[in-house]
Amino acid sequence: MSETTSQSPSVLIVGSMALDNVRTPAGEVQDALGGAADYSSIAASFFSPVQIVGVVGDDFPQEHLDFLASRNIDISGIQTIPGGKTFRWAGYYDFDLNIAHTLDTQLNVFADFQPKLPVSHQNAEYVFLANIDPELQLDVLKQVKSPKLTVCDTMNFWIEGKRDALLEVLKHVDIAFMNDAEARQLTGKLSVVKAAKALQELGPKTVIIKKGEHGALLFSGNEHFAAPSYPLEDIADPTGAGDTFAGGFIGYVAQQNNTNIETLRKAVVYGSVLASFNVEDFSLNRMRTLTHAEIGARYREFRNISFFEALDEASV
Amino acid sequence: MSETTSQSPSVLIVGSMALDNVRTPAGEVQDALGGAADYSSIAASFFSPVQIVGVVGDDFPQEHLDFLASRNIDISGIQTIPGGKTFRWAGYYDFDLNIAHTLDTQLNVFADFQPKLPVSHQNAEYVFLANIDPELQLDVLKQVKSPKLTVCDTMNFWIEGKRDALLEVLKHVDIAFMNDAEARQLTGKLSVVKAAKALQELGPKTVIIKKGEHGALLFSGNEHFAAPSYPLEDIADPTGAGDTFAGGFIGYVAQQNNTNIETLRKAVVYGSVLASFNVEDFSLNRMRTLTHAEIGARYREFRNISFFEALDEASV
Repeated sequence: MSETTSQSPSVLIVGSMALDNVRTPAGEVQDALGGAADYSSIAASFFSPVQIVGVVGDDFPQEHLDFLASRNIDISGIQTIPGGKTFRWAGYYDFDLNIAHTLDTQLNVFADFQPKLPVSHQNAEYVFLANIDPELQLDVLKQVKSPKLTVCDTMNFWIEGKRDALLEVLKHVDIAFMNDAEARQLTGKLSVVKAAKALQELGPKTVIIKKGEHGALLFSGNEHFAAPSYPLEDIADPTGAGDTFAGGFIGYVAQQNNTNIETLRKAVVYGSVLASFNVEDFSLNRMRTLTHAEIGARYREFRNISFFEALDEASV
Repeated sequence: MSETTSQSPSVLIVGSMALDNVRTPAGEVQDALGGAADYSSIAASFFSPVQIVGVVGDDFPQEHLDFLASRNIDISGIQTIPGGKTFRWAGYYDFDLNIAHTLDTQLNVFADFQPKLPVSHQNAEYVFLANIDPELQLDVLKQVKSPKLTVCDTMNFWIEGKRDALLEVLKHVDIAFMNDAEARQLTGKLSVVKAAKALQELGPKTVIIKKGEHGALLFSGNEHFAAPSYPLEDIADPTGAGDTFAGGFIGYVAQQNNTNIETLRKAVVYGSVLASFNVEDFSLNRMRTLTHAEIGARYREFRNISFFEALDEASV
């Protein structure tokens, strides 16, 4: 994996920025850095420069802004609302880490978020619309001039409450991320394979299904790829795993600056690698110490996990 | 894949033989060939000769015995009880094909099954103890003289009702198959990875976790392998998928006549290939027409599904 260089195209990432209170069987954190845009931007920044667009209140610690800026992330698109409070989420996980239980959600300044792209961001070639109101995702799409690749994520809340706007987003993006439950919910298909194909018919040529502990599936045209999950024994905090996965994915694609199928397959694996690290600690803490050498080593582990020899063609 | 030859060691398979009534959203069958020993024997027979041991009543159709015998399966170990009735299972699946709903179970002659191995079977090198009472599995283990590889399967019914006997079986087998729910239930570990490692500590060096639509995991010593699932859009009948998987696995291992890790990885894929075909039709009907060329082609598809390029080592 090559180091990020100034030649790599930037990734534009728009989404939530949050302060989280999270409790899991492994411990808890208060006022920790969270939000889909933060998770995905940090993950993408291991591969490409990032332009983050989001909103915070003036309670958002300067140290978090400094952390983002230290990672080749352009923070000029972050609006800070004077006197406003940052979006806050409080939740916990029991022993089944697949289920997040929400204790409290305070939208605060995020309730009135209207992403306005600085001129410098309007020429973005790689665009990731992290999980926000699909109407805002559409607004952002209108502001970018000629993107090479547009990618969206979403969640059950918008599938239920903003279905028409979400369908409109899907008509206009190249790649859609969803978890298996969301794909089933949106399409009404119980089979994940049928759900993914139904999603492709709604617009995106490529659909990536996140299956948590069961890995991830890529459907692109008629191509199909299954990435294994990493056999982690101890997960500290699953918050942000999906955002980290998507961020690692688009960061790698932007670094390679092409969207051929082999790049997309590798990008799914890099996303899985980043997510597998992120859940090892709370908030984005593992990302603070993660090195490119560790990413490379785990990529090799993913290869080993999924390796089996070819058919002996001579003896078929 | 080489054709079965008379040089391949035989696989001894002991388990249930049944007549099933099954209904799924795709249709239904009555008095269809079923049972773990039948599914696994037919699957194994694509790779190696099989010695099947089971019990039926004299209501068991001769055509089913003829079908088994036609596939390089030695049926001399099948006991036919005069005046007895064959084990019968009736059940259905709704749109969630992961859940079998039992309507009726009639053990009949299976209730008094006491597997007695013919002398010709006692020298078996490869032994598969399909899903039966673990006390019977122990009996069979005592009758085989010097097996090279012993493999067991089980189900929730025995985990609940015959836990001590099952733990004794696990002490004496080389490989244990379980689905993810069974592995969690037996070990009390919610993480599949922790559950598999706990199972290894109970005896078997190798544990294979069946995850249905999410593929299968192999844990062998410190090695880990994840086989993808095949993206089937339409499943006619999931009955026997796990038995077919295990049968394909041990049939391939016996054909190769070694248990090194590369053989085990390939065997998990061949098991997955056979299972992916079996669910395309009811009962064992798909196995009746399946060819070695089709098996080889789908094996290549599994390779393609899980392929991604190596890390560019020069640029790490």
